[in-house]
Amino acid sequence: MGFPAGRQGQKQPRGNMDIRYLEESDYGPIIRVIDSWFEGRQLAKLLPRIFFIHFRSTSFALYEDNKVIGFLAGFVSQTDPSQAYIHFVAINPDHQKRGLGRQLYSTFFETVHRLGCTTVRCITSPINTRSIAFHTRMGFKVEHITGECSGVPRTVNYELNGADRVLFVRSLP
Amino acid sequence: MGFPAGRQGQKQPRGNMDIRYLEESDYGPIIRVIDSWFEGRQLAKLLPRIFFIHFRSTSFALYEDNKVIGFLAGFVSQTDPSQAYIHFVAINPDHQKRGLGRQLYSTFFETVHRLGCTTVRCITSPINTRSIAFHTRMGFKVEHITGECSGVPRTVNYELNGADRVLFVRSLP
Repeated sequence: MGFPAGRQGQKQPRGNMDIRYLEESDYGPIIRVIDSWFEGRQLAKLLPRIFFIHFRSTSFALYEDNKVIGFLAGFVSQTDPSQAYIHFVAINPDHQKRGLGRQLYSTFFETVHRLGCTTVRCITSPINTRSIAFHTRMGFKVEHITGECSGVPRTVNYELNGADRVLFVRSLP
Repeated sequence: MGFPAGRQGQKQPRGNMDIRYLEESDYGPIIRVIDSWFEGRQLAKLLPRIFFIHFRSTSFALYEDNKVIGFLAGFVSQTDPSQAYIHFVAINPDHQKRGLGRQLYSTFFETVHRLGCTTVRCITSPINTRSIAFHTRMGFKVEHITGECSGVPRTVNYELNGADRVLFVRSLP
């Protein structure tokens, strides 16, 4: 799951902001800008179109003035329907520091709780300190810790190409 | 969805072959060999670990003598639970021409039909002529055709990076 590095101090007045389910027509506009939202990290390939087609009931777009400025793609586990998983989250860096990530997560939590989920999981990269701080603030705990580096507990070699990941879990009340 | 190029004429005697649900412990062994099954095409990145964790009820491993020789990763659409989707299929090229792909698909069809699905979709690459022939034999039709090249009908620029795809759909009886 991604979470872009922020551009600090850009509090903006709120326009006509709202949240709706993600739609397949969001795929093009999002996929064209997503790498730039993450300072050029190539993340578009982590976001296949299937999330915009088959997981709409638990995936959300934040839009303002008819433009998507953030989104969350998640699903309910089909192995264990009491578990939900957040696959990808991104906020346009020009709209960070407005609590939009919290709004997307709250919407997801309420939705999957209504669907019977009691646990939410997600994964982030150990270098994404903003994402780690955000998830900690949102009540997530790190699980499956097998190592630590630069003070960041992590699951070593989770991706099997040597890349570590931080695995988060949170209970739903 | 992938489907490896075959090595012709290698009919082999069947060992202790069986099908079971995909397990998270299959992720490592599969991810380490998958690119070699596809003649070096880099497909491992299309196969995140979430399929081995959260979609096990509709994902299957074919194993023989305790080794995975093929697998199918699919799910039921959460937007429309009457639709199923096959995300990735692969057979070890040393075990092709044994009808294993057909066995995996039949297992998937039966499973999702029992779960209430009436339609199955999947996507392949226009250069994968073996995959196109296989899906045609399995009763799939091409949909959303917006172009044709070398006699292969396709959806042009489906991936938005210029890459065309062949979109397949099949009804379940």
